[in-house]
Amino acid sequence: MAIDGPLKLSLQILRGGEPAIGPGKAIVLEAIGRTGSISGAGRSLGMSYRKIWRLVDALNDDWRERVVETQAGRGEQSGARLTDFGADLLARYRATERRTMEAAAGADLDWLLSATKRDQ
Amino acid sequence: MAIDGPLKLSLQILRGGEPAIGPGKAIVLEAIGRTGSISGAGRSLGMSYRKIWRLVDALNDDWRERVVETQAGRGEQSGARLTDFGADLLARYRATERRTMEAAAGADLDWLLSATKRDQ
Repeated sequence: MAIDGPLKLSLQILRGGEPAIGPGKAIVLEAIGRTGSISGAGRSLGMSYRKIWRLVDALNDDWRERVVETQAGRGEQSGARLTDFGADLLARYRATERRTMEAAAGADLDWLLSATKRDQ
Repeated sequence: MAIDGPLKLSLQILRGGEPAIGPGKAIVLEAIGRTGSISGAGRSLGMSYRKIWRLVDALNDDWRERVVETQAGRGEQSGARLTDFGADLLARYRATERRTMEAAAGADLDWLLSATKRDQ
């Protein structure tokens, strides 16, 4: 769910102590952008329609503007897309994450990555 | 447990897919360094002796050298200290974490921090 490998880095922006955006919600937003629907995102991520809905609901509640817009339709057939605000949010989150990841590189990280036992 | 605030950043080094060091273990190592014992670290962090022991055990198992050294004594009275390797591990972990945190700063992060709803 986060930037992963032997190094795992997780970035969250909190609201009221709870994550308003983090690795999981970012993946859900990308899947909605890619598939154009809540149900498509769920299938693509192996998550239930209900679970994706809850995350979308939380996103739309935690940010100043709507993040995901749903279009009228019959239940799971209705479409969904990121608003301009939502696309901006996702891009800025990913850009921040990328910068932190790049900054991790260096002699200290090399030492850490080479200092775990190798028998696994 | 991680660098916290409206921005939460968590850095882990994995071994076999599991965290060999992360925010929680770093705090435990610091508490052992400060208090000089497993039980002191437990009291200082509000964690059980048993829980701290499990984490120390995992640390000593996951890294190429021992991270924490315990001195003979009667049960919870025995002392504990970081080895040179353990102190190095902790310092390099914290340095890497600090660099990632500094790199997060910027226009994108400012936007993210100002774009959550303010009614909480």
